[in-house]
Amino acid sequence: MSQTLFDLHKAKLDAALNALRTRDYYSAYAESPSPRKYGETADKDGQAAFKAHLNRSFELDMPGITGEAGSEVSPYGFELGIKYPTVDIDILLPAMNEARKVWRDIGVQARTGICLEILKRINQHSFEIGYAVMHTSGQGFMMAFQAGGPHAQDRGLEAVAYGYDAMIHSPAAATWTKPQGKHDPLVMDKTFTVAGRGVALVIGCSTFPTWNTYPGLFASLVTGNPVVVKPHPAGILPAAISVKIAQDVLREQGLPPHIVSMVIDADPAQPCTKALAQRDEVKLIDFTGNTPFGDWLEHNCHQAQVYTEKAGVNTIIIDSTDNFKGMIQNLSFTLSLYSGQMCTTPQDIFIPAGGIETDQGHKSFDEVAEALSTGITRFLSDPERAGMVLGCIQAEVTDKRIDSARELGEKIGTVVRESDRPENPWFKEGRMRSPLLIAVDADKEDAYMEELFGPISFLVRTASTAHSIELAHKAVKNHGAITMGCYSTSDAVLEQIEEAALDAGVALSINLTAGVYVNQSAAFSDFHATGCNPAANASLSDLAYVANRFRIIQSRKHA
Amino acid sequence: MSQTLFDLHKAKLDAALNALRTRDYYSAYAESPSPRKYGETADKDGQAAFKAHLNRSFELDMPGITGEAGSEVSPYGFELGIKYPTVDIDILLPAMNEARKVWRDIGVQARTGICLEILKRINQHSFEIGYAVMHTSGQGFMMAFQAGGPHAQDRGLEAVAYGYDAMIHSPAAATWTKPQGKHDPLVMDKTFTVAGRGVALVIGCSTFPTWNTYPGLFASLVTGNPVVVKPHPAGILPAAISVKIAQDVLREQGLPPHIVSMVIDADPAQPCTKALAQRDEVKLIDFTGNTPFGDWLEHNCHQAQVYTEKAGVNTIIIDSTDNFKGMIQNLSFTLSLYSGQMCTTPQDIFIPAGGIETDQGHKSFDEVAEALSTGITRFLSDPERAGMVLGCIQAEVTDKRIDSARELGEKIGTVVRESDRPENPWFKEGRMRSPLLIAVDADKEDAYMEELFGPISFLVRTASTAHSIELAHKAVKNHGAITMGCYSTSDAVLEQIEEAALDAGVALSINLTAGVYVNQSAAFSDFHATGCNPAANASLSDLAYVANRFRIIQSRKHA
Repeated sequence: MSQTLFDLHKAKLDAALNALRTRDYYSAYAESPSPRKYGETADKDGQAAFKAHLNRSFELDMPGITGEAGSEVSPYGFELGIKYPTVDIDILLPAMNEARKVWRDIGVQARTGICLEILKRINQHSFEIGYAVMHTSGQGFMMAFQAGGPHAQDRGLEAVAYGYDAMIHSPAAATWTKPQGKHDPLVMDKTFTVAGRGVALVIGCSTFPTWNTYPGLFASLVTGNPVVVKPHPAGILPAAISVKIAQDVLREQGLPPHIVSMVIDADPAQPCTKALAQRDEVKLIDFTGNTPFGDWLEHNCHQAQVYTEKAGVNTIIIDSTDNFKGMIQNLSFTLSLYSGQMCTTPQDIFIPAGGIETDQGHKSFDEVAEALSTGITRFLSDPERAGMVLGCIQAEVTDKRIDSARELGEKIGTVVRESDRPENPWFKEGRMRSPLLIAVDADKEDAYMEELFGPISFLVRTASTAHSIELAHKAVKNHGAITMGCYSTSDAVLEQIEEAALDAGVALSINLTAGVYVNQSAAFSDFHATGCNPAANASLSDLAYVANRFRIIQSRKHA
Repeated sequence: MSQTLFDLHKAKLDAALNALRTRDYYSAYAESPSPRKYGETADKDGQAAFKAHLNRSFELDMPGITGEAGSEVSPYGFELGIKYPTVDIDILLPAMNEARKVWRDIGVQARTGICLEILKRINQHSFEIGYAVMHTSGQGFMMAFQAGGPHAQDRGLEAVAYGYDAMIHSPAAATWTKPQGKHDPLVMDKTFTVAGRGVALVIGCSTFPTWNTYPGLFASLVTGNPVVVKPHPAGILPAAISVKIAQDVLREQGLPPHIVSMVIDADPAQPCTKALAQRDEVKLIDFTGNTPFGDWLEHNCHQAQVYTEKAGVNTIIIDSTDNFKGMIQNLSFTLSLYSGQMCTTPQDIFIPAGGIETDQGHKSFDEVAEALSTGITRFLSDPERAGMVLGCIQAEVTDKRIDSARELGEKIGTVVRESDRPENPWFKEGRMRSPLLIAVDADKEDAYMEELFGPISFLVRTASTAHSIELAHKAVKNHGAITMGCYSTSDAVLEQIEEAALDAGVALSINLTAGVYVNQSAAFSDFHATGCNPAANASLSDLAYVANRFRIIQSRKHA
C-alpha cells in the first residue's frame, strides 16, 4: 500500500532529485493561490476550515494525553481560543521509540511514498494552513499562503528528496566476490539496512511555523525517525494541522499515527522543551529560534545530533550601482516584507561616508539614506499593499524593541525613517509597524553588530567600501548571517566582496534590482544558511542536513 | 598541474565510486607484499628505509618548529630513537587556517587529484610503512603491511571517493529560470563553492596508526580542510612518513606543504591534545581511542564536528552449527589475530549452559570451551605462524591487564585457556601473549560487560540462546560494539539475532567458518562501525562521514 504511494509520487520525486542536482528553478506546489490552481472554492473553504478550528479542542492521536492547553493570539487582534492535547512524555516517547521498528521495516521506498503523500495532503490544505500561519505569525495572507504553504512544502519535498538520495547511495543488498588466485573466490552475501537514529524532535518558531518546521520534520521522518514537533507556543495551529494530516496518512497505511506527534507546554510559563531535548530517546533535534537556546541545545544534548538556526546580522554593502532606482525599489520591498521579521532581512547597510557613484550621478550618504526612506514610504503608501506586505508584528517584544531601537538611534545617530503604525485595512487591531531606519557612524558597533529582530535597519557610514567589506565580514564571522547583499559596478570590488562572503561563509546576492530579493530563497536552488557561521550550524537542505539522520546496519554471511 | 593528477587517477576514482555503490569486492592497492606486485627489491628497500629513520631526526616542513621530541619503543624490544619536530601551535594553526583559501580555490577536482597522488605515493612506501607500523603497533609484519599499508590506503581512497561524490552532488554553477507567465522569466546566475570548515584534527591510536588515521585525514583533506595529525605518542613514525609524503606532493603542486601537518607532545607527560582540540581554528576532529577521552571531545569541543571511535564490547552468539570444525578454526584465528588488540575482536562469547547442537552431535558448554581452547593452541603451535599472527602486545598496560583479568577469572569463573608468552622466532625481546579464555556464568556482567582490551575473552554460560541474544543486545546498547557474530542453523534464531543487531545498531557476521573473519572489514563493502551505539559516533566511511566536512557557499546575480 505504501509502495503504491511511492509509485504514485515517483515522478515528483524524480523531478525534485533532478532539481537538486541542476539547481535550476523547480517548484512542486503552485505558489499562486489562484482558483485555477487550487479550485474555485479553495479560498472560502480554507478560511472556513481555519475558522472551524477557533475556540475548540484540536484532536491529535497520541498515547499519554493528559489534558489540553493553548493560548494563541492572532497578531491581527483576536484570540484563537484553540486547545491542543497535552501529553505525558514518559508515555509518548517510549511509544514513539517502539514505533521505530515498524517505521524502519517498511523500508526506504514506502517511507518516501508516505512522506510524499503527507506533503500532497498538506498542499491540499494550503489555504487553511495559510490562514493559520497568517493568524499566528502575523504575515500578510499572500506571504502566509506562499511561504507557509507551497514554499514550505517545497522545502519539505527538498528534504525528502535529499534523504531519499542519501539512503539509496548504498544498495540494500550486495554480493561480495573476492578472487583467491587459483582457488575458489570468497563470496559473501550482505544486506544493508537503513535505520533511523531514534526519535527526532523539531522545535518550531513563531514567525515561520511551517517553513522552518517541514525541513527537519521530513528529513528525519523519511530517514526512519519518528518525529515529535514542539511548536512555538505562539504558533501551534499550523504545526497541529500538519501533524494531524501526517497522522491521517500513517493511520490509513496501518501504521501507528504517533510516528508523527506534537508536544506543547501544559503551562507556557514552564516550557518542557529542555526536558524533551535531553530525553535519551531523542537522537535528532532541529531548532529555529534564539541564539542562547540554540547554543544551549548544542552544548547540552550530547545524546542527539543538533541542527540549529539562530540569530544573525545580515548585511548589505553598497559601493555603486548602474540602477539606483532598481536598487532602492528592491531594498524598499526587502525591508518592508513581513516588517523585517525574516531571518534573512538585512539589518546593516554599509555605505561609504563619501557617497556612491550611480547612473543618476554621485549620491551622498544622506541622499542614499533619504532615497531609501522615501522609497519605503512610497512603496507603503497604498494601505492595502502595506497591509499585505508588512503584515503584523508577531510578538509584543518586537514591537517594543522598535521603540527602544529608535531611542538608541536618536542617541547615537540619526533616525532617517520613523517606524509608524499603519492601520490594517481589514483588521483594525492588527499590530502593524513600518521599517525604522537609523543612520550611524561605523564606530557604533555595539548597536548595529547585535541582532535587533524586527523592522530595524542601520545605515552605517563607513570610511570606504573596503571598510564596509571589513565590517560586513566581521558581522558574519562574529555574529552570524544568513544573507549578504551587495551593489557595485566594479568587478574588482565584487571580487573582494565575494572573497569576504566565501571566507566568512555566507550566501551572497549581487546587484539585485528586479523581482528577486535578498531575503528570499528558492527551494531546490538556494541553500538557506550555510552552516559555517554562527547563525546556523546547518543548511536547509544539503547532503549534510540528511546524511547524519540515519545509519546503515549491515549483516553478512557466506554465500 | 593538479588537474593533471585528477585526470591521471580518474580511472581509480571511478572504480572506487562504483564499488561504493555496488559494495562488491574492490581494492585499489595490492594486498599481497609479493615482488610481482611491488617489485623485486621492495621488501629490502622498505626495510632499509625504515632502518634509516632510526636514531635520527625526522624532518617535516611546518612553520613554528620549536625543537624535537619522540620516545617510541618497538613492542619487539628496541627503542626507535627517532626525534620529530615539535611546533608552536600558536604559529602553526593560524598558518594552516590561512592556507584554507588556496586549498579551497584550487577546487574539487584538483584537491581530489592531489589526495589520490598522495595515496599512490603512500602505496609505493607500503613496505617502509609496514615496518613502521610493525615496530610501533606490535603487529606481525604481514598484518602490519596489509592493514597498515594497502588496506589503510583503500580506506583512505574510500574516504576520498565519498568526499568527492558528496562535493559534486551540487553543481559548481547553475542558471535559474523562473517563468513569469506572459512576462519575461526571472533568470539568475548562481555559483556554488565548496569550502572546508576549518582546520581538521586527526588524533591517531597506537594499534592502527595508519588504518584509523587515513579515513579522517583524507575525508577532511579532500573536502577542503588543512589537516593536522596528532599521532599517538607510541605510534608516530607511520603518521610522520605519511605526512611527509603528503607535504612532498603539496610542495610539488606549488601549495603550502603545511596543509598537512603533524603535532606531537613536546613532553608526553603533558599532552597538548586537549588544547589543540579546543582551538577555534579546529572545526573537525577525528579520534580513535579510549572512551573517556572520546566522550570529553564530544562534550567539550563545541566549535568542532567530532567523529569518534571508542571502546566497545564485541560479542559472539553460539546457538548451533553445521560446521563445528570450521567455526572453531574461524574463531581461533579471530581471537589470535594481533593478540585480540583489534577494536573488532570479540570479547564475549555467549553459549547456552545446556550446550549446542552441531554436525558432530551435541556439544556441552565445556566441550565448546575446550574445543576453542585447543583450537587456539593448535593454531599457534607453529612458532613462526604464532609470531606472524599474534604479533606483540603494543602497550605494557595491556600486558598487565591480561594478568589481572586472569586473576579475576579464577575468582569469578574458570580459566579455560592460559595466556602464555610465546617466544618470537625473530625478536627474542618481543612482548608476545596468546589469548586468555575465561568461562563465567551470565550473572558476572560486572566483569565481561566492560571492555578489557587485549587477548582476553569470556565464554559466558547463558540460560538459553534467547538469553544470549538479550545479553549481546545489552552489550551493544550499553557498552558499544563494532562487531557481532553468531552461529546458528535455525532461521528463526537467526531472525531474532538479526533483529537484535538491527535494533542495537551493530554489524552482524553470520556463520563465518571460512576465510572471512568477524574482526576484518573490507573497504568499499563493509561499513566499519555503525555510528549508532556507544562504540563510535560515525562509520568509516559513509556519506554521513564526509557530508558535514564542507559547506556550500553560494552567490547569485541577475543573468
